[in-house]
Amino acid sequence: MTFDALFVPAAARHAVSDVAWLDALLRTERALAQAEASLGVISPAAAEAISGACRPDLFDVGSLAEQGRAAGNPVEPLVRTLREQVGGEAASFVHFGATSQDILDTAASLVARNGVALLLAELDGVAAACARLADEHRATVTAARTLLQQAVPTTFGLKAASWLVGVVHARHRLAAMRLPAQLGGAGGTLAALGENGLAVLNAFARELQLPAPVVPWHARRLPLAELGAQLAVAAGWCAKIALDLALLAQTEVGEVRVPDGASSTMPHKRNPLGPVLARACAEHVTAAAGVLLHLEHEHERAAGAWHAEWKALSDGLAYAVGAAAALRETLEGLEVDADRMRANLREETLSEAERFAPDARRPEDYLGSAGAFIDRALAFARE
Amino acid sequence: MTFDALFVPAAARHAVSDVAWLDALLRTERALAQAEASLGVISPAAAEAISGACRPDLFDVGSLAEQGRAAGNPVEPLVRTLREQVGGEAASFVHFGATSQDILDTAASLVARNGVALLLAELDGVAAACARLADEHRATVTAARTLLQQAVPTTFGLKAASWLVGVVHARHRLAAMRLPAQLGGAGGTLAALGENGLAVLNAFARELQLPAPVVPWHARRLPLAELGAQLAVAAGWCAKIALDLALLAQTEVGEVRVPDGASSTMPHKRNPLGPVLARACAEHVTAAAGVLLHLEHEHERAAGAWHAEWKALSDGLAYAVGAAAALRETLEGLEVDADRMRANLREETLSEAERFAPDARRPEDYLGSAGAFIDRALAFARE
Amino acid sequence: MTFDALFVPAAARHAVSDVAWLDALLRTERALAQAEASLGVISPAAAEAISGACRPDLFDVGSLAEQGRAAGNPVEPLVRTLREQVGGEAASFVHFGATSQDILDTAASLVARNGVALLLAELDGVAAACARLADEHRATVTAARTLLQQAVPTTFGLKAASWLVGVVHARHRLAAMRLPAQLGGAGGTLAALGENGLAVLNAFARELQLPAPVVPWHARRLPLAELGAQLAVAAGWCAKIALDLALLAQTEVGEVRVPDGASSTMPHKRNPLGPVLARACAEHVTAAAGVLLHLEHEHERAAGAWHAEWKALSDGLAYAVGAAAALRETLEGLEVDADRMRANLREETLSEAERFAPDARRPEDYLGSAGAFIDRALAFARE
Amino acid sequence: MTFDALFVPAAARHAVSDVAWLDALLRTERALAQAEASLGVISPAAAEAISGACRPDLFDVGSLAEQGRAAGNPVEPLVRTLREQVGGEAASFVHFGATSQDILDTAASLVARNGVALLLAELDGVAAACARLADEHRATVTAARTLLQQAVPTTFGLKAASWLVGVVHARHRLAAMRLPAQLGGAGGTLAALGENGLAVLNAFARELQLPAPVVPWHARRLPLAELGAQLAVAAGWCAKIALDLALLAQTEVGEVRVPDGASSTMPHKRNPLGPVLARACAEHVTAAAGVLLHLEHEHERAAGAWHAEWKALSDGLAYAVGAAAALRETLEGLEVDADRMRANLREETLSEAERFAPDARRPEDYLGSAGAFIDRALAFARE
Repeated sequence: MTFDALFVPAAARHAVSDVAWLDALLRTERALAQAEASLGVISPAAAEAISGACRPDLFDVGSLAEQGRAAGNPVEPLVRTLREQVGGEAASFVHFGATSQDILDTAASLVARNGVALLLAELDGVAAACARLADEHRATVTAARTLLQQAVPTTFGLKAASWLVGVVHARHRLAAMRLPAQLGGAGGTLAALGENGLAVLNAFARELQLPAPVVPWHARRLPLAELGAQLAVAAGWCAKIALDLALLAQTEVGEVRVPDGASSTMPHKRNPLGPVLARACAEHVTAAAGVLLHLEHEHERAAGAWHAEWKALSDGLAYAVGAAAALRETLEGLEVDADRMRANLREETLSEAERFAPDARRPEDYLGSAGAFIDRALAFARE
Repeated sequence: MTFDALFVPAAARHAVSDVAWLDALLRTERALAQAEASLGVISPAAAEAISGACRPDLFDVGSLAEQGRAAGNPVEPLVRTLREQVGGEAASFVHFGATSQDILDTAASLVARNGVALLLAELDGVAAACARLADEHRATVTAARTLLQQAVPTTFGLKAASWLVGVVHARHRLAAMRLPAQLGGAGGTLAALGENGLAVLNAFARELQLPAPVVPWHARRLPLAELGAQLAVAAGWCAKIALDLALLAQTEVGEVRVPDGASSTMPHKRNPLGPVLARACAEHVTAAAGVLLHLEHEHERAAGAWHAEWKALSDGLAYAVGAAAALRETLEGLEVDADRMRANLREETLSEAERFAPDARRPEDYLGSAGAFIDRALAFARE
Repeated sequence: MTFDALFVPAAARHAVSDVAWLDALLRTERALAQAEASLGVISPAAAEAISGACRPDLFDVGSLAEQGRAAGNPVEPLVRTLREQVGGEAASFVHFGATSQDILDTAASLVARNGVALLLAELDGVAAACARLADEHRATVTAARTLLQQAVPTTFGLKAASWLVGVVHARHRLAAMRLPAQLGGAGGTLAALGENGLAVLNAFARELQLPAPVVPWHARRLPLAELGAQLAVAAGWCAKIALDLALLAQTEVGEVRVPDGASSTMPHKRNPLGPVLARACAEHVTAAAGVLLHLEHEHERAAGAWHAEWKALSDGLAYAVGAAAALRETLEGLEVDADRMRANLREETLSEAERFAPDARRPEDYLGSAGAFIDRALAFARE
Repeated sequence: MTFDALFVPAAARHAVSDVAWLDALLRTERALAQAEASLGVISPAAAEAISGACRPDLFDVGSLAEQGRAAGNPVEPLVRTLREQVGGEAASFVHFGATSQDILDTAASLVARNGVALLLAELDGVAAACARLADEHRATVTAARTLLQQAVPTTFGLKAASWLVGVVHARHRLAAMRLPAQLGGAGGTLAALGENGLAVLNAFARELQLPAPVVPWHARRLPLAELGAQLAVAAGWCAKIALDLALLAQTEVGEVRVPDGASSTMPHKRNPLGPVLARACAEHVTAAAGVLLHLEHEHERAAGAWHAEWKALSDGLAYAVGAAAALRETLEGLEVDADRMRANLREETLSEAERFAPDARRPEDYLGSAGAFIDRALAFARE
């Protein structure tokens, strides 16, 4: 709500805006009409009239939300307005057989699909940058740090390789997640569609290229909870990389330089803004995931828990993109100071290594399987 | 971010909007200049020039947030723009001795004060409604329900009295919370103000009628964490009352009727919209509190945790007002069905009561200290 | 910590006890020795001596935890004690090439595997009960309830079918989760194992039938975060079913009777104890998941976030089993009152249905695709 | 549940153990009998008999918890056993007029009081150490670090002074929190006590030196939620100080040395174990607070949310003590390296300071109000 533009790229802000939700709601109503027409439930003419009126520019989204307060959701005023726009006999076939939640949940699935697509693109950018760093810095010796203390030598390449594996892992999980279409009617039985219920459900889902659910999921919110958790995992992983970068960029460590941010009072300071933004964003995604993990939805539609999802889903998507974008920009502009890494290595850290490899003479001789691990990581990323 | 207008009254949306934050930031810069002028740190003429330029209409808040991305906060571009507006020699006295966080934290304290004031007003409305119900329904016998089962008789008045005590308690706690002004300069030492540091801090705080901190709190965020928690307590308590109402309004219970909400498909349904909105809002406040409870701010300014506060504070305030407002509207329009309450009392519930009061003949004889408790609650509310 | 025995079945309490962790730690040290011997890294004799000493009865687990305070983990004193037990030359090959976290993380994976197995068994019981209810109650008409109000008729069978789909979904996700073995040595490079690093890692993982990670995951905790989230989803879904049951069992609804719980004061009360316990357990799982979702582990080993996982994982597993067990017992003893369901259906609910199916004469005629959905759910569960 | 002994001092583990809860439950039953006897509600002989049987050694706490599973709480079997122990006529006056929750909630208040007392003692130790550091290091110049970058000079004394202010603030808040006694009987009306309800409630509270509530708080859990939040604030603040210490102790920074922890593989490493333990503990306190902030307790007693409190309260108390104790030990053994602090100060950091104080020649000349702030902090701590 506050300073969103500071944290979230414009595309992601747009993807979860009221306008984007309106667009998704109207696409859903249109798909319903077309699916019903394709099965003879409503006439082709009605479907055409309805489809023609499903244009965002005919609606005032602010007014819909305010009117929605009286109904508990924005679909009731949207349907009312849509019926007015359609007019005539076709008006009574608007929203036919559906309940508000069918439309809103399906729209949420569309919004989520768009938001996740933006996130995957950012994660791909992060992964590409990590892969490049892993490959380029195979021989860049640096300290492995455990409990914030130098332990033994490792390579910056292996550090980046571990970042890469996490990003690719998170990306795979997210890419496999597809929220389903929703269609159940007032009580989840599709009663108003008579014999045609399942056929309409399937056609409707196909129309929107969404999976059809086994049975309506009005109060069975596992997919949303899992998406929320996976957004938190993705953003949290971006925050972990961001934290490593902020720690490496510390004045006293200085092993990386991140793209610059201006300080209002201290021109000499090079603030790690990308990491800072990524970490801040991730906190909001985790908070949103907490809301989406609330699965106690009463009976066939929850008295509150459902209504809390819309903002949580939007925030979760937008700020996850924010986290990934800030990290990607940081990694793409990262300067790695290999000399400083070497210089920072303490005597004790090197001696420690010698305990394990008494014949070794240089840090490079103590790196064990670091190179092999990098190869495995790069192969995993290419899979 | 999504459908805010459905959940949050316009005044509360405004109170945490980017525009409101801009206004608070500019009031803060102005107060700083005036405090400094009052102590001779800058000239009266400079202070006047600065004060005159601290007008929200001279700034484009969207642009500030977007530019803020390069600085990690919106104050850097704001100060830059303000200096341009002021021009001349006075420009160099804009933001004198302050750091971005001084301005943002103080603005947050102002935003919080305004948001809490709206919340207190709504809670007062809730309390007034609860007090009325407690008093009017002293003799309205109903079932006490434990683990969702009828236990023994109580009164609806006592139920409302317990609601009242919680609201008054939450209100007292919130009213006692005042976020302090912030002024520490780049490192929290007020170095740029020389000998005048403490005097400027005190004058600055007085100017804004905010408490002065013992020492700068750039990375000591207990007040914000406690405010966040207390917002969650207030909203959570509204949600508890809302849940009781939704349970009492169930079709099969029917002991209260809440102001109506239209259903898109079922005109006969009387949806408990106020309770639904209150419960949904409360989830967002709890989520925001989770962010604000994150106290691990590194050293003298956090690399991310600070930046996560702005949205969390705004959301927490706005949705707490949303929860209280929805509950207040519900309670003000509540219809209590005393006959139904009596009719719903099961034989076993009454017999149970007889075990304790063998001479009793009517439910009214089994109510123990219910009336005395109502008196205590009303007295507590008047304190 | 408090009254665990009230919530968590003995088997699950045992599975996450200090004793079980000790057992897992020793199995891990033994597997390491055996893997290293199989590759000639240590001698068969050393491996045999070490394996022989990896017996829980030789260790005092309470003392290990207390001593562990000085090291920040229990592995350091365990290794020290193990070396004493082994004695002789072989002592120096105990824990060879490993770091404490290798042993603890691998033990965590073993503990998680055992805990998840208990959970899957309970979820299977829940699913079986849901499937039976779905099948038996295909024709049991009841009210679909949205926002806690009766909407239109549905069947209790469809309600149970939706429960079933969620349980099966949660079960599939959990069954697919396998935490990997961990072996990286002090810095994640397996430096002390020279050329044999990867071979030892693979042999070690095979020995314990755990997946080998792509690269060591000392600070890449996505698998644990995802397991935590999935435990919360499974427990949260149990809580949702529990909530539905508690609502159906309300005195005024009375559509189901759950196995009895005694009341200390009111013998007539039939408290829904199973649902109550399930819901309470789920809250602890969600809380534990919140800890596990914290992915900001610094560099190669976290200064705190790692140490917080052990309790969170244990609590998450144990209380998830607690939630599922309480729900299973409830469902297995559930009495469904079909007559009461029919009697509770309001006139308006039936009339509402007639709007959609004007030719219908009985509630059974208004059920749309309810039966077809049950078939889909049962088929999904059999997959 | 796992490795508690590693994180929580023995006294705190004991204070929230099942045995401590049993003791508190029995003290509560005894106080009830004595309060009732003092008002003539039961005979002195009955009270004496009951008091005599309220001895923990007569009960098997493990068995109570297991039996409690059938009742949903441990009080039902405890009361049953207590009646057997008392025998004769007096047995029927055991637990007279009370409900299980009266006893459990009051016991929770006693457990909380004991746990908070342990926590306050630890916080006092932390405060004393901070005050000493603040005073001793008034002149120890070090870098203020913002966003993990050096900003301008400050003193280590001021850093410790800010820690101090937070600890004292958290301590004051906690000390002011006192959970009330609970007594309401089955439905919150004290029906079984007839005219004597309020008098018994007051005598009972007095007996235990707990505040009497305005009205029973069976489902009005604000005090517990606020205690939970305040425990999270206290532990979170300990974690913040711990994080600062861990960052200062980094190999590359080396400005403080914390008491040593052994590494299983690297004897040279000086792991910051106290900070690590404190941070890990704080995560569990925050998680517990999340459970306690759940205020949606249904009607007069919650179906689950109440039952989730016992473990959350115990964990919150124990791990908050754990966090404070680990931090106190760390601060008491802290070595501050003033030379290293000075040596670490970058040229740019000093030049930056010169911009503000052109006449200054040494870092000491750039410290603004640092000394005055330390005085304010020490005065605040003495209040």
